[in-house]
Amino acid sequence: MAEREEQQRKGISRRGLFGAAGAAVATGVAGYAAHSVIATPESQASDSSGPVEFHGPHQAGIVTPAQDRLHFATFDVTAGKRDALVSLLKEWTAAAALITAGRDIGQYGAVNGPGEAPPEDTGEAVGLPPARLTLTIGFGPSLFVDAKGNDRFGLADRRPAALADLPHFIGDTLDPARSGGDIAIQACSDDPQVAVHAIRNLARIGFGTTAVRYSQLGFGRTSSTSRAQTTPRNLFGFKDGTNNLKLEDTAKLEQQLWVQPGDGPDWMTGGSYLVARRIRMTIETWDRTSLSEQETIVGRGKGTGAPLGKADEFDPIDFEAKGADGEYKVAKDSHVRLAHPQFNNGAELLRRGYNFVDGSDGLGRLNAGLFFLAYQRDPRKQFIPIQQQLSRSDVMNEYIRHVGSGIFACPGGVQAGSFWGEKLFA
Amino acid sequence: MAEREEQQRKGISRRGLFGAAGAAVATGVAGYAAHSVIATPESQASDSSGPVEFHGPHQAGIVTPAQDRLHFATFDVTAGKRDALVSLLKEWTAAAALITAGRDIGQYGAVNGPGEAPPEDTGEAVGLPPARLTLTIGFGPSLFVDAKGNDRFGLADRRPAALADLPHFIGDTLDPARSGGDIAIQACSDDPQVAVHAIRNLARIGFGTTAVRYSQLGFGRTSSTSRAQTTPRNLFGFKDGTNNLKLEDTAKLEQQLWVQPGDGPDWMTGGSYLVARRIRMTIETWDRTSLSEQETIVGRGKGTGAPLGKADEFDPIDFEAKGADGEYKVAKDSHVRLAHPQFNNGAELLRRGYNFVDGSDGLGRLNAGLFFLAYQRDPRKQFIPIQQQLSRSDVMNEYIRHVGSGIFACPGGVQAGSFWGEKLFA
Repeated sequence: MAEREEQQRKGISRRGLFGAAGAAVATGVAGYAAHSVIATPESQASDSSGPVEFHGPHQAGIVTPAQDRLHFATFDVTAGKRDALVSLLKEWTAAAALITAGRDIGQYGAVNGPGEAPPEDTGEAVGLPPARLTLTIGFGPSLFVDAKGNDRFGLADRRPAALADLPHFIGDTLDPARSGGDIAIQACSDDPQVAVHAIRNLARIGFGTTAVRYSQLGFGRTSSTSRAQTTPRNLFGFKDGTNNLKLEDTAKLEQQLWVQPGDGPDWMTGGSYLVARRIRMTIETWDRTSLSEQETIVGRGKGTGAPLGKADEFDPIDFEAKGADGEYKVAKDSHVRLAHPQFNNGAELLRRGYNFVDGSDGLGRLNAGLFFLAYQRDPRKQFIPIQQQLSRSDVMNEYIRHVGSGIFACPGGVQAGSFWGEKLFA
Repeated sequence: MAEREEQQRKGISRRGLFGAAGAAVATGVAGYAAHSVIATPESQASDSSGPVEFHGPHQAGIVTPAQDRLHFATFDVTAGKRDALVSLLKEWTAAAALITAGRDIGQYGAVNGPGEAPPEDTGEAVGLPPARLTLTIGFGPSLFVDAKGNDRFGLADRRPAALADLPHFIGDTLDPARSGGDIAIQACSDDPQVAVHAIRNLARIGFGTTAVRYSQLGFGRTSSTSRAQTTPRNLFGFKDGTNNLKLEDTAKLEQQLWVQPGDGPDWMTGGSYLVARRIRMTIETWDRTSLSEQETIVGRGKGTGAPLGKADEFDPIDFEAKGADGEYKVAKDSHVRLAHPQFNNGAELLRRGYNFVDGSDGLGRLNAGLFFLAYQRDPRKQFIPIQQQLSRSDVMNEYIRHVGSGIFACPGGVQAGSFWGEKLFA
């Protein structure tokens, strides 16, 4: 751990780096965190500039009140050695602890020397606050056994059964270049430049060991993960995630979100499984659909977000209520019904997706949609059966297309002195 | 103008839309603006949720203190009729006045009827504040005479000479799909969802008359346009735009930015010419370059932003100063020297570009760079000669590549009761 501690000592507050002598401002992460620990979800949701604690029993960035911006990337390990991978994970962890605390990684050449080395930090976040940056890591199936069946890192027998290969769902039109990856890192922040800076610097540290497989920016979180947050809107214009799992649902989180002792290999205890799906929305077609059709498809009012037949967003959904025409008020093939735990053996997900617009598609349409991110205790009982039902019957399918996909095992939280995935490699 | 006034009457405050009866909250734009006019650049720069006045002698979004987020799109006119184009410009102007004031466009079907029509607004900005949204329009050379030499709209003799076709610059590797366009609309806001909503709804209104040619999101403004703003950093990690034209330089703006009477056709008086360049940065290569090399290329310190040999960002640059080695402290081929007005016959630009990261490039690198936007009085005397000099000699060229390009004539401001480009079509 020597290199990690050395890097922590070198970590420098972004706000003070260039205004003061390097040594005077170079204090450890722990010291910084002590001044700025944010304990309550309410304050985390409202203070968009402060830091989120990196260490803890669970990884940050899962139940953390969803930040406004995303930079998500997956990486392929290009060097075949286990030792190189472990070294990288240590370096990444040290860097992640620094930048989530609002520090730069290492030193600029200018501080102590003649500047003949490249700066250890790329610099575009200098002067910016931590902006609630969280970095969350997950390991994909290909890290355990690659596409050719090779056990590259001696991890084959450590793969959890819950890290299942996702089946083909009806309508899937997946782009391999936007799917998979040996390792995923989710950077969330209230400032996109801070999230971009984080992924860029981790990619830079990984150079020679990993290569970016794909990278996705997102804005406008499409779910709340705390009751202190209002429900945002997706690019269909509807409130999204009203009934999402929230960090205040502590008992339910143990049941639905966090991997429990005995669920599988010990190294995943306290962790969670992430399913990422790039969902293209054909918003131009949607926008020419009548309001009543849109509301019927979703099962909620567009303005209020209330279940059809109810007045308020958080009113319980009455799936049995029928209108004067004898039809269910919340239609049988509506999205909200088919996705509801009542029709999925009680299965729930913690969603923290983001809207995206990646330019246009060359056909006069915006390349837009939802980058769906969902955490769960066991995808075999949660995402997979829910999505099988949705892909078969959800009338919303006419307006969406799943074009990218990934599944990742996100281990439990990092303790000070440990590193991402230490128990996996133990 | 009947349809415009009708739409203004229908415009509904986003915050109040669904909580109150439609009629009660449907007040005109002017009424709303009277409550929330923001007069000083300082307050505009600090209040990131308020509105920016749409009407005025110049278009908003040029000297407006640069907002944090961009959604830029260019459109091709697909219908060949002048009348259809004029109707669209009227509709767009009415919609722009509404959404920049934080209103939705028109009504949701639910307010008055059974919802059998598509909503007139796509809805994803409901509940969001105006967030300093500005919408700025420009007309490209192809609107006047298309690639086949056709005068589609009877505008050929109204093309200003200053709307010059940009020459090929050394090193240009332009993608036609990310270049050109009959019309450009720049949406800037402190909230990306507000900027995306604006372009999406204008694209929607244009359906049948225009098609999106390309669309670009940006974050982290890379210039200040007011002295009330701090200088931001680009993805090279350097402060960018220290010596940018600022809205407080009123005399210089008349000289460098705003088209003056007699400069060309009357319809451009009070307007400005926009050059847009998508500049890909090879940040992975840059990040492996030594700090001293980076600083030599830029001509400024990375931390402070000060000219080399000086201490403070805003210290005047001494281009004559030499070090002990007899070399210029600010190198002869440094970016800051070659771009400086002193070496460009006094020519300056008002830059308001944005950083972008558009995923990865399939080779393990981030598809990242600077979406350069610069406004000026006459590109033939400003952007073109400056860029000719930079493309020949700037050592920064090793790390950048111009991959998209456009030039647009942005007319003067819109008065209440007028519409975008009215004088062009008069």
